[in-house]
Amino acid sequence: MGEKKKIYKPKAISGFPEWLPEERLVEQKWLDHIRQVFESYGFCSIETPSVEELDVITAKGEVDKEIYVLERLHKDEDSDKEARLALHFDQTVPLARYTAQHFNDLVFPFKRYQMQRVWRGERPQMGRMREFTQCDIDVINVDNLPLSFDAEMPSIVYEALEGLNIGRVQLRISNRKILMGLLQSLGIEDPTPVTRIIDKIEKLHEGQIEQLLKEEGLNTDQISKILNLAKTKELSTLSPENDLMKKGIEELQFVMDNLSHLPDHAVVADLSIVRGLDYYTGTVYETQLLDVPEFTGSVCSGGRYDDLAGSYINKHLPGVGISIGFSRLFDVIRQSRRDLLDIGPKCPADILMVLPSAEQRETATQTARSLRKRGFKVEMYHAPQKVKKQLSYAEKKGIPFVWFPPFEGGQEHEIKNMNSGEQTQADPNTWEKP
Amino acid sequence: MGEKKKIYKPKAISGFPEWLPEERLVEQKWLDHIRQVFESYGFCSIETPSVEELDVITAKGEVDKEIYVLERLHKDEDSDKEARLALHFDQTVPLARYTAQHFNDLVFPFKRYQMQRVWRGERPQMGRMREFTQCDIDVINVDNLPLSFDAEMPSIVYEALEGLNIGRVQLRISNRKILMGLLQSLGIEDPTPVTRIIDKIEKLHEGQIEQLLKEEGLNTDQISKILNLAKTKELSTLSPENDLMKKGIEELQFVMDNLSHLPDHAVVADLSIVRGLDYYTGTVYETQLLDVPEFTGSVCSGGRYDDLAGSYINKHLPGVGISIGFSRLFDVIRQSRRDLLDIGPKCPADILMVLPSAEQRETATQTARSLRKRGFKVEMYHAPQKVKKQLSYAEKKGIPFVWFPPFEGGQEHEIKNMNSGEQTQADPNTWEKP
Repeated sequence: MGEKKKIYKPKAISGFPEWLPEERLVEQKWLDHIRQVFESYGFCSIETPSVEELDVITAKGEVDKEIYVLERLHKDEDSDKEARLALHFDQTVPLARYTAQHFNDLVFPFKRYQMQRVWRGERPQMGRMREFTQCDIDVINVDNLPLSFDAEMPSIVYEALEGLNIGRVQLRISNRKILMGLLQSLGIEDPTPVTRIIDKIEKLHEGQIEQLLKEEGLNTDQISKILNLAKTKELSTLSPENDLMKKGIEELQFVMDNLSHLPDHAVVADLSIVRGLDYYTGTVYETQLLDVPEFTGSVCSGGRYDDLAGSYINKHLPGVGISIGFSRLFDVIRQSRRDLLDIGPKCPADILMVLPSAEQRETATQTARSLRKRGFKVEMYHAPQKVKKQLSYAEKKGIPFVWFPPFEGGQEHEIKNMNSGEQTQADPNTWEKP
Repeated sequence: MGEKKKIYKPKAISGFPEWLPEERLVEQKWLDHIRQVFESYGFCSIETPSVEELDVITAKGEVDKEIYVLERLHKDEDSDKEARLALHFDQTVPLARYTAQHFNDLVFPFKRYQMQRVWRGERPQMGRMREFTQCDIDVINVDNLPLSFDAEMPSIVYEALEGLNIGRVQLRISNRKILMGLLQSLGIEDPTPVTRIIDKIEKLHEGQIEQLLKEEGLNTDQISKILNLAKTKELSTLSPENDLMKKGIEELQFVMDNLSHLPDHAVVADLSIVRGLDYYTGTVYETQLLDVPEFTGSVCSGGRYDDLAGSYINKHLPGVGISIGFSRLFDVIRQSRRDLLDIGPKCPADILMVLPSAEQRETATQTARSLRKRGFKVEMYHAPQKVKKQLSYAEKKGIPFVWFPPFEGGQEHEIKNMNSGEQTQADPNTWEKP
């Protein structure tokens, strides 16, 4: 121990955030709230391993996300025989694989929530993380999934987000069938380049969007019809060009009608929402923080997909799901609106139990035990130091109450409210928080 | 959609377990309980990234655990400039790094709990996992850490484990100073080979242990004294050979004295417990499941270490900690004593809301909303199918109550208790679980 030690000074790893205890307490409160809302709608929890076989992840074809694969540091001859494992980059692929693998043990419609970390090996940049937590809900059914679930999703996530006290939240909803129908009616065969361009409508000027569409070979009439559609916020003004578009409008109308109980700002139809991902086939969602205008990204997105697990099982499994980008959301508020986090104590204790002297350890411990049995969180002070020092510890940790077991020959317990400074007699068997 | 799809049939990945929803519900109940106990003693939560820099993990020297390092699937020229990242194999190295890195922002004694996944790339075998959850508590202080924390640890984990309903649990406690003192008095300079052998005492016969010690060059007198010590369960029968041994006995006695409030079987002094890890310097803990005799491993282990973060910061930071091998514990009970898991429903819902007809969707949704506001977990049935089908769904999912909004012209709500079969009138604003 006497020798001079070699010290490796640790630093933060870019893209892999961690929080101080007082921030973590708020993060936990958020996660608990979201979980409680998900469960209040009857969704069950699952967790999947952090890894999938690389063959599972790529079963649908090339993945455009940056994937981390695992390598054992001390490889041996067996390593090459094993399947390559990769950290999952979302919770949708694991859900599809899980549903296929456990198909016979699940009850459908399968309503599950999943709150786990995911990993993306992308270059870290502002707001981009390489490891982050997502909170997903999805419903999957065999063959046919009622549209009512498309309307339930926004209700649930609105309630989940609204309870976080992060200002006004707005869900923007569209239905891809509407744009797909229009593109069909305009004779545009491959919709993918167009949807990719429309997806950028929040970030670019109208002129830029027009230019991009022109470069795809669209004519003025086509471009103007597409842009008109993307700007539509009132469904009643839309005239369907074909059956697909008509179906999309009806579906979106049904979803909006079923969300009328939410506040006016909470949900809007917005036909510029297409989502980049090709697997969405109907309803699509994005979510904006109206009171954090400096952040324009979507904090909660998803949609309806016709065929979730077709790469893993010979069943037709339609689904609808939505995902809260939890870590991103937490970090945006943490950086832009720290006041909203309401950062407080550094530990969960309600009460610090004073240890007046070594001889009174047993009394103090017993009192702490009685209070814990009654549901209070009680930290024992660790050494019979001066009371002033013990109070200052409670203050530094943000513990709201300090308990004094009887001391200096007294008979009575006392409790000090650190907020008001008031100190009163108290009985560990009956005391309640004021 | 019409073409024949290529299907990649997924299978379980050895060493990476996942559970069905009904098992996950029990796992969550366990995790919630453990967290509640940890917090009731005032421990704060932290989470660290899943990765550390490989240089951080190996800062103390060679690691004998199998480590997974991350590789980006699509490496570019930047990849080589980045630090190599490895998944953490325990929560102690991350805690040490975290404490050093955030030293100035933490209040000491720093009491934290951490419930995360860890990874070990070892060959999977019965009971060994490559990804598993640990539930750790540790206390770290600057320079000096009161012994009372060594006594608090067993109290906390006993309460955490006892509440899981897994039969009788026994903590076995020793203090490494006792054996170290004896070895010093016997003139044995390097204690490591001896402690490694004593650590196997549960698995081998006494003759085998004797043979191994003989192979280390120990004589009959030395061996007999060491074995006598290891068999001691009564501290009062020990006579200290030197100051170190005396100090160890006193410390262990203090810890045992402070645990007298626990049931008789809950804590025993057991001098055969040494723990293989060299960094423990005082108190050491192991935990046995007394009612699962077929499993002899320790489900919860830890101890006191003199210098936690010396590789990362030039401070003397002693600590004491204990770790519940959560996934292993859950899996042992799941496989050996499935009856104890009390596996029940497949989802958390209290109530299934019947949807009598499409026209009554609004009434049903509103009723569900009122019940949720009152704290109930309510799943909406998704389609206006026959009531019999809706009841059978509730039964399959294990939902205990089914709610009927007024239908067929009636005015009254009714609720059916799926357990008793009883169906009664109920008001969504006043109904309570019987």
